[in-house]
Amino acid sequence: MDFEYSQKVKDLQARLNAFMDQHVYPNEKKFLEQVAEGDRWQPTAIIEELKLKAKEAGLWNLFLPESSRGAGLTNLEYAPLCEIMGRVLWAPEVFNCSAPDTGNMEVLERYGTEEQKKRWLEPLLRGEIRSAFAMTEPNVASSDATNISSSIVRDGDEYVINGRKWWTSGANDPRCKIFIFMGKTDPDNPSRHSQQSMILVPRDTPGVKILRHLPVFGYDDAPHGHAEILFDNVRVPASNMLLGEGRGFEIAQGRLGPGRIHHCMRLIGLAERALEKMCQRALGRVAFGKPVAAQTVTLERIAEARIQIDSARLLTLKAAYMMDTVGNKVAAKEIAMIKVAAPNMACQVIDWAMQVHGAGGVSDDFGLAYAYAMARTLRFADGPDEVHRNAIGKMELGRYVPKDAMAAYTSSRARK
Amino acid sequence: MDFEYSQKVKDLQARLNAFMDQHVYPNEKKFLEQVAEGDRWQPTAIIEELKLKAKEAGLWNLFLPESSRGAGLTNLEYAPLCEIMGRVLWAPEVFNCSAPDTGNMEVLERYGTEEQKKRWLEPLLRGEIRSAFAMTEPNVASSDATNISSSIVRDGDEYVINGRKWWTSGANDPRCKIFIFMGKTDPDNPSRHSQQSMILVPRDTPGVKILRHLPVFGYDDAPHGHAEILFDNVRVPASNMLLGEGRGFEIAQGRLGPGRIHHCMRLIGLAERALEKMCQRALGRVAFGKPVAAQTVTLERIAEARIQIDSARLLTLKAAYMMDTVGNKVAAKEIAMIKVAAPNMACQVIDWAMQVHGAGGVSDDFGLAYAYAMARTLRFADGPDEVHRNAIGKMELGRYVPKDAMAAYTSSRARK
Amino acid sequence: MDFEYSQKVKDLQARLNAFMDQHVYPNEKKFLEQVAEGDRWQPTAIIEELKLKAKEAGLWNLFLPESSRGAGLTNLEYAPLCEIMGRVLWAPEVFNCSAPDTGNMEVLERYGTEEQKKRWLEPLLRGEIRSAFAMTEPNVASSDATNISSSIVRDGDEYVINGRKWWTSGANDPRCKIFIFMGKTDPDNPSRHSQQSMILVPRDTPGVKILRHLPVFGYDDAPHGHAEILFDNVRVPASNMLLGEGRGFEIAQGRLGPGRIHHCMRLIGLAERALEKMCQRALGRVAFGKPVAAQTVTLERIAEARIQIDSARLLTLKAAYMMDTVGNKVAAKEIAMIKVAAPNMACQVIDWAMQVHGAGGVSDDFGLAYAYAMARTLRFADGPDEVHRNAIGKMELGRYVPKDAMAAYTSSRARK
Amino acid sequence: MDFEYSQKVKDLQARLNAFMDQHVYPNEKKFLEQVAEGDRWQPTAIIEELKLKAKEAGLWNLFLPESSRGAGLTNLEYAPLCEIMGRVLWAPEVFNCSAPDTGNMEVLERYGTEEQKKRWLEPLLRGEIRSAFAMTEPNVASSDATNISSSIVRDGDEYVINGRKWWTSGANDPRCKIFIFMGKTDPDNPSRHSQQSMILVPRDTPGVKILRHLPVFGYDDAPHGHAEILFDNVRVPASNMLLGEGRGFEIAQGRLGPGRIHHCMRLIGLAERALEKMCQRALGRVAFGKPVAAQTVTLERIAEARIQIDSARLLTLKAAYMMDTVGNKVAAKEIAMIKVAAPNMACQVIDWAMQVHGAGGVSDDFGLAYAYAMARTLRFADGPDEVHRNAIGKMELGRYVPKDAMAAYTSSRARK
Repeated sequence: MDFEYSQKVKDLQARLNAFMDQHVYPNEKKFLEQVAEGDRWQPTAIIEELKLKAKEAGLWNLFLPESSRGAGLTNLEYAPLCEIMGRVLWAPEVFNCSAPDTGNMEVLERYGTEEQKKRWLEPLLRGEIRSAFAMTEPNVASSDATNISSSIVRDGDEYVINGRKWWTSGANDPRCKIFIFMGKTDPDNPSRHSQQSMILVPRDTPGVKILRHLPVFGYDDAPHGHAEILFDNVRVPASNMLLGEGRGFEIAQGRLGPGRIHHCMRLIGLAERALEKMCQRALGRVAFGKPVAAQTVTLERIAEARIQIDSARLLTLKAAYMMDTVGNKVAAKEIAMIKVAAPNMACQVIDWAMQVHGAGGVSDDFGLAYAYAMARTLRFADGPDEVHRNAIGKMELGRYVPKDAMAAYTSSRARK
Repeated sequence: MDFEYSQKVKDLQARLNAFMDQHVYPNEKKFLEQVAEGDRWQPTAIIEELKLKAKEAGLWNLFLPESSRGAGLTNLEYAPLCEIMGRVLWAPEVFNCSAPDTGNMEVLERYGTEEQKKRWLEPLLRGEIRSAFAMTEPNVASSDATNISSSIVRDGDEYVINGRKWWTSGANDPRCKIFIFMGKTDPDNPSRHSQQSMILVPRDTPGVKILRHLPVFGYDDAPHGHAEILFDNVRVPASNMLLGEGRGFEIAQGRLGPGRIHHCMRLIGLAERALEKMCQRALGRVAFGKPVAAQTVTLERIAEARIQIDSARLLTLKAAYMMDTVGNKVAAKEIAMIKVAAPNMACQVIDWAMQVHGAGGVSDDFGLAYAYAMARTLRFADGPDEVHRNAIGKMELGRYVPKDAMAAYTSSRARK
Repeated sequence: MDFEYSQKVKDLQARLNAFMDQHVYPNEKKFLEQVAEGDRWQPTAIIEELKLKAKEAGLWNLFLPESSRGAGLTNLEYAPLCEIMGRVLWAPEVFNCSAPDTGNMEVLERYGTEEQKKRWLEPLLRGEIRSAFAMTEPNVASSDATNISSSIVRDGDEYVINGRKWWTSGANDPRCKIFIFMGKTDPDNPSRHSQQSMILVPRDTPGVKILRHLPVFGYDDAPHGHAEILFDNVRVPASNMLLGEGRGFEIAQGRLGPGRIHHCMRLIGLAERALEKMCQRALGRVAFGKPVAAQTVTLERIAEARIQIDSARLLTLKAAYMMDTVGNKVAAKEIAMIKVAAPNMACQVIDWAMQVHGAGGVSDDFGLAYAYAMARTLRFADGPDEVHRNAIGKMELGRYVPKDAMAAYTSSRARK
Repeated sequence: MDFEYSQKVKDLQARLNAFMDQHVYPNEKKFLEQVAEGDRWQPTAIIEELKLKAKEAGLWNLFLPESSRGAGLTNLEYAPLCEIMGRVLWAPEVFNCSAPDTGNMEVLERYGTEEQKKRWLEPLLRGEIRSAFAMTEPNVASSDATNISSSIVRDGDEYVINGRKWWTSGANDPRCKIFIFMGKTDPDNPSRHSQQSMILVPRDTPGVKILRHLPVFGYDDAPHGHAEILFDNVRVPASNMLLGEGRGFEIAQGRLGPGRIHHCMRLIGLAERALEKMCQRALGRVAFGKPVAAQTVTLERIAEARIQIDSARLLTLKAAYMMDTVGNKVAAKEIAMIKVAAPNMACQVIDWAMQVHGAGGVSDDFGLAYAYAMARTLRFADGPDEVHRNAIGKMELGRYVPKDAMAAYTSSRARK
């Protein structure tokens, strides 16, 4: 494993940090003010301004590996850059590197037809439109993707789509123009992993009803937001199918790797920022006659935070390295490991940072409660901890048992 | 220690549970709707209606021990009733048992003059007005009360008050008519604990400026809320002083015991409710071929939640019993212990409950994220965990060291 | 729940503490020396001396509830006394209250014939002989008692016993004269809980071979020890059967309640002692310019230790109270809860105490490592944590599901 | 950071693994038998045999970086090899890579005179003798090295040494011929870090009295052991001084880096082995109708163990890389981080592994309890967790505060 940053990466880090210093940190307050000013669900002027600046600065679409459309960075090269963006929750969008668009763009790039790319990928890459990923359903445990119950039924040259989705992040934003929708085209297929398909659904298609936005610990996360959506006899052309009927699970597997690692990278940046705030606060407050920073209990937590952040970063770099060198599939265990480790680490570090801030920590004055809410949510996004830990555990056991014998040792339906 | 519930308590439990079943649980949604309808900062009709019903049902002012004005319950008797109310965040107000009013009423009952009682305590007991407690300051670590920097200066027949307070809960509610304000009358007194006083400040006194409400995570906690307030040359009559100049610290100590234990009792109810939801959800969801309830990892967490809740309840009953039998001062260690144990327990149990709910857990659909936010905040209210753990540790060490020698073993300023 | 200690209990506490102060603590070193002097597997003179003194002092057989043969104490009354004995690992034997004898005596008292009582119970109660409980087997997960594979086969007027047992504690001590042996008389009984029986096996019966003693960490726990034993065609009279064929599971259930709670009570005493040592050490050592006791990180751990010990004690008292008032069967959940909580608490508290002692903590100079080893072992004795947590979880879920429907929600074989 | 293993390392890994498979694992039982056979404090024949084989196989002295006397490996190259050796507690000695000799050899190599090297380093490198490090004292908190109270006084051509040391590991082994002794030559030097010196003391010098061996959780760790030693007017030639009077602290700092990282590397191997055993056991045992491996609670722990082991390994590789590239001094924070992280990780992983083994886990049948005892001890060796966490915390805070201002924020004596 070679984690050394190349000169190109070091240069990008420097430029990205300079951009953050000059344009992002000084505008953190303004962003919140602009969201508060209107109806909350309109894009902010500040982000649009900064997008232009970032594009000019050549800090644009840094995420897309193995493609001539992106910046040509590997996952490993992108990791330290993504971490920097993650230090401010809304910063990734400035660089056109925000979820769920990056994952969706990867899907279009890998599995889309030329026509699909032209119609949707290109404006996405230009930052003109945004996208959403409609997978999770309110009525089933969606972490087990075979539970998905929405239907996609062929009818002549069209598909008819029915179902209810929630946690479709970004759908509330008027710039969001396209959904990648997951549902079942073949619910009776004996192979449980061939029942699903993914299909493109333009947002303005008749029958698409955004029912509400879902708050996260009281935050509406506007203007992005997390939508609950009804798809009621929605009809799209058959050419909107991605890759082919029954290949939804395959695309999901392909999409989730990059999506997950990007989340982890951003969380590391978020945790670094929290630790920074924690140190500053501890240095600046006096209680019972000495600075909070001089209490050994504070020093212990700072030390543990540093250990946990550095551990999570190294694990993430390793996963990125493996994705680059042996592919997302072989790197499945490492991706699952960071999916568990990074959000839990971030929650813990941010919680400690809140504690050092006293009651101010749960307010919006330091951004920590919001950061906590987002980090906590990422213990669910793309599957809860428990699902990933189970998968890791089985892969670990698999080292001692022939593959076809593992079924006897596991209780999941998957073995059938 | 006799924790057996008397017949009177069992009867009240039954009636309170019946009231909750009939009037509170069915209106949980309506409460949120009524808050959302207006400008959020107006009292809701539903609470006012239910207050009347509770008063009629004889479920009113159950909290006030050792007073003819309350229901004549000891702390131990009140504990299981307070727990029931705590199952719904807004329910205590229905029974006129909500924070910070209960603590403030205790202060007025114990330390107020007859005139002060008539003017403020009586309407509070009737549920006609509400009150707030203005202690914490944004600019200092207020958990060390000697840091408080607001000033109260005698000027003829008046006191002139200056200072900035935050986390003054309830001040945003228009029914809130009176503040108990803590500040320094004698900042140079060599005895650090004789510098502070408490004084009554009617909310409509000129110079009182409510600057903003502070959110808790993303919740405004409307219509109650948590205010930041500027006191700018506020003048009140000298007769508004509580107990006497320099006795603020003494009142604070007296107030905090009951306030803390009430919070703990409510948190136990809140955690019980979360565990209930966790069980129901685990029974109702299927993942990877079997109910979530059948996973041993779920069973482990349910078991740990049950152990932690029962432990916290027993600790709280013990503290209540000691407050009743040996007084709040001797019970200081036990009060500090539950102040640490109950909020941490509640945060953990609610977090597990959220996890079983998947992403729904962080939304508002199950009330868990809001419950978490409130429980997390109570790790700060009345002093952060760290301050209480330090106090417990010193009391424990004090068993082995003569009292006057303890100073050599502690590093706090208190020894000077 | 009334946890108040009666006058009788307070009197016994005082006498027991006085006895410990006068006779036990001052002989802690002597005990270890006497064990080290001989071949380690002979009873020590000091214990035999102190047994006489304890008998004279009326501090004898305090454990046996609901029997004219014991001291007439309820479980609740015995709890605080058992805790005091638990402060020194070998002290319970001095008062004839040590494991596994107390559990075995309870079995004989509850389920033995008059003849069995006369032959074995009476000398046990007099402290003349000791006993062992042969249940766990090396080759199966014995926490699932239905896995037990030893056989007990009727042959005329005798039973023939075959099997291999381990962790038969106390069997290495020459005073141990009788085993209660669990095996299967009816392995094909469709009711999985009617296959087992318990039978009395005198230690000197031909075919009983003690193979070795099992260390716990590096401690042989001599002269008590934990034996691995082969039962090779061991023949005992049919009258040695306890209660009747097929009733072994029933006896096991009856035995385990008291056995478990006694362990928990002793662990609380052990943890109290560790905390005491932790405080003393923290007060006596200086590092980096101030006493270790003045470090906030030390204060935090002392505080958490106090909270955890008090929680575990209250939980244990509650379980004892329920055993006394509603019976061991209804108290099953509470017994399981302390079986999880107390050993984990003790391990944690002792570990913190070790840490404050520096490397001395893992040596034998402070008795902490030995205490840790014993506490850690009790996370297995009578079933590992996991088994108890599962049982608690299922009982908790059972509140929401009709009993006969629970099977659908659990994955254990029990449902079949 | 480039963690990629070179071809040389991969080749050594393969050869080392082959050696372990062929010669070490098959002899684990024999080693214990040979120790048990004699008086426990004699070297075993099996180790001497294997040392010859290892030397022949070119697997000898792999540890010594930047020296022509070692194998020419960097710390980073040595890490994966040291991990393999660490899988069996006594294996490192087979390759002449065991503590405390490696640390002592590094001291002699870096700071010894030619004469000292010839007399002591060379036989050590040949594996003919062993050595010990006499630093920790029973009467003071030795983690604060300025507490060390032993004296080294110049008297003509000699130094006279007085003091009591404990945890002098390896001193009980008759092959141990030389001690590196730390004491104060200048106790009144105002610079607290110039008071100490290190000096060579041949074991057979008159006045050196080995008082006893200290057990670790009941294990004597024979024939290596941990000695308590009295130095009573011990006289050595002045030429035995290392580096010069007053430079003991400097040497300690230089010695501890490599010593610590070697411990961490070995612990990672030990934890890997425990996880391996845990998986095997979980696959092989059935409880309540299915393999323990199929319980989600087992899968969770296996997953967490994998995450924690991999995190600790990556942190350790990073520390090694930094030691190689920027030096031990600049890598101080990273070394402190692994000193905290690795032993805690190992204790946790081994504890989980014990739990899956049931009571067998605390016996000697699986080697886990012994492994736990050793890992737990390493939370003290070279300073307890708390000291390292404090150091890390201060270094982290130092990023925000000018170096000369840090003193105001810390409470340690160091500021004076």
